[in-house]
Amino acid sequence: MAHMFYKYIIFVFFSLLIMHTLAYPKKLDANKPCKRFVLYYHDILYDGTDAANATSATVTNHTNLGNFEHGMLVVFDDPVTKDHHLLSPPVARAQGFYFYDMKTEYNAWFSYTLIFNSTEHKGTINIMGADLMGEKTRDFSVVGGTGDFFMTRGIVTIRTDNVQGFFYFRLEMDIKLYECY
Amino acid sequence: MAHMFYKYIIFVFFSLLIMHTLAYPKKLDANKPCKRFVLYYHDILYDGTDAANATSATVTNHTNLGNFEHGMLVVFDDPVTKDHHLLSPPVARAQGFYFYDMKTEYNAWFSYTLIFNSTEHKGTINIMGADLMGEKTRDFSVVGGTGDFFMTRGIVTIRTDNVQGFFYFRLEMDIKLYECY
Amino acid sequence: MAHMFYKYIIFVFFSLLIMHTLAYPKKLDANKPCKRFVLYYHDILYDGTDAANATSATVTNHTNLGNFEHGMLVVFDDPVTKDHHLLSPPVARAQGFYFYDMKTEYNAWFSYTLIFNSTEHKGTINIMGADLMGEKTRDFSVVGGTGDFFMTRGIVTIRTDNVQGFFYFRLEMDIKLYECY
Repeated sequence: MAHMFYKYIIFVFFSLLIMHTLAYPKKLDANKPCKRFVLYYHDILYDGTDAANATSATVTNHTNLGNFEHGMLVVFDDPVTKDHHLLSPPVARAQGFYFYDMKTEYNAWFSYTLIFNSTEHKGTINIMGADLMGEKTRDFSVVGGTGDFFMTRGIVTIRTDNVQGFFYFRLEMDIKLYECY
Repeated sequence: MAHMFYKYIIFVFFSLLIMHTLAYPKKLDANKPCKRFVLYYHDILYDGTDAANATSATVTNHTNLGNFEHGMLVVFDDPVTKDHHLLSPPVARAQGFYFYDMKTEYNAWFSYTLIFNSTEHKGTINIMGADLMGEKTRDFSVVGGTGDFFMTRGIVTIRTDNVQGFFYFRLEMDIKLYECY
Repeated sequence: MAHMFYKYIIFVFFSLLIMHTLAYPKKLDANKPCKRFVLYYHDILYDGTDAANATSATVTNHTNLGNFEHGMLVVFDDPVTKDHHLLSPPVARAQGFYFYDMKTEYNAWFSYTLIFNSTEHKGTINIMGADLMGEKTRDFSVVGGTGDFFMTRGIVTIRTDNVQGFFYFRLEMDIKLYECY
C-alpha cells in the first residue's frame, strides 16, 4: 500500500503541473497572434473642391498652439485595401476621426472602426491610439470587435506608407489579433 | 503491474481531456452572455430654443462633403430608460459624442459611457463603434467597465427605435456582457 | 478491485475540484492589480497668449446648452509626472482630448493615450471614460496597451488634485492594471 501511495503522490504532482500549464493559456505571446493580416488605409482629405474623390474632411480648424495643426480634427470614411493601390477594390472601410495634438511636431491621435462587409468577412474591429508620427512604426490598440471579429483584442502596428502633400496619405496597418473566438 | 499501468494511461488521457476543456473557458459563446439587459437611449438635440428639454447639442457644423451632415459632431448627456418612454425614470445616463461620417448616406460613429448611479447598479460601461444606420441592427463594442461592471467587455446591439424629425431619436441598446467579474 | 475503484472515484473528484479552481484564473480581484502606479496629469490650457507653457487648447467653443461649457472640446499633449509638481521631469505624455458634456454642472469625458518613452518604460496605455467631476474619485477604463503594456486592461481612478482658475488643473491618476502579459 505504501508503494501505491507513493505512486499516487507522483501522479498527483505530475497532474497538477500539467493542469497549471493548461490553466493559464492567457500568457499571450506578442509573436503569436491568433490572426494576422496587413491592410492599407487611404485618407483623401477634402480640399474644398474634390468632393467626388475625397473620403475625409476637416471638421475643426487648427488652434494657434504651435505650427503643426494642433487641434485640427478630421472625420473620415476611408477605403481600406489589401495592397497599397488606392484604386484596388476596398476590402473594408475605416470610419472614425483623427486630430493633430502637438505644438512642436506633427503628431496625431486616432479612434476608428474597420468595417468588413464582404463574403470573406462581416464584422467590425474597433481601434484607438496615439500616432507618434516621428516613429517609423507605432502601435494602436484593438479594443473590441463584432461579427466575425467577435470580442477580439490586439495590436495594430502602423507605418506611413505614402504621403502626397497635405491631402493624401496612406498607412500600412499590420493587424495582429491575440484574442480570437 | 502491466494491467495497472494500462489503467493509468487511460486515466491520464481522460484527465487531460477534461483538463483541456476546463482550461480554456474563454471560448466565449455569442449566445451566452454572462449578463444581458435592454435599455433605451433618448437623444434630444438642442434646436437653439429648447434648452430645458434638450440633452445634446451640435458642437461642430457639418462639412461640405456630401449632403448627409458629414462632420457634424454632437456631445450628449442623454437619459437611458428601461422601456421606450422618454419620460420613464432614467436608470442611467449616456455621456459621450457621436458624429456623422459619410458623404453618400447617413452614418455615424459613437463613443460614450453609460453611467449607473442607483441602488440597483453603481458603475460605468464604456462603449464605442460605428453606427451603420442603413442596417436594421448594428454592433458596438463594450470596451471596459467600472464599479458593478468592473472590467467587463461585450457587445451592444443597437436598433433605431424611433426618429422624430431632426431633433429626437431613440436607440434600443441590447447590452450583452461576456466578461463579468 | 472494488476498493481500487472507490479510490479512483475519490481521486477523480478531487482532481476535478483542483482543476476547476485552476481553470478559472480570470476571477479578477479589484484589490489585486498585477501592476499599480500613481501618476499626475497636468493640463495647462492655452489662454491665447501663453503658447510657450500651454499644453492643451480649446478646439470647439461651448454650445449654448447650459452654463457649464457644454461642448467645449480640448485637445491636449500634457506632461505626466510621478509627483504633483508640474516642473518635475515628465515620465510620460498624455495625448488625447476631453470635452464638457453637461448642462447643469461641470462634467467631462476623456479619451487619451499615456505614452511612455524612457529607460524604465516604453509603450502606451489607452484610456477612456466619464469624468464625473462632482464625485471625489471616478474611474476610467484602461482599454488596451502596447509595448511594455502589451494588451493590458485595467482601471484608472482619478482625483482632482488641484485647480487654478480656468487654465490649469491637475489630476491624480491611480492606475491599476489587471491584465499583465
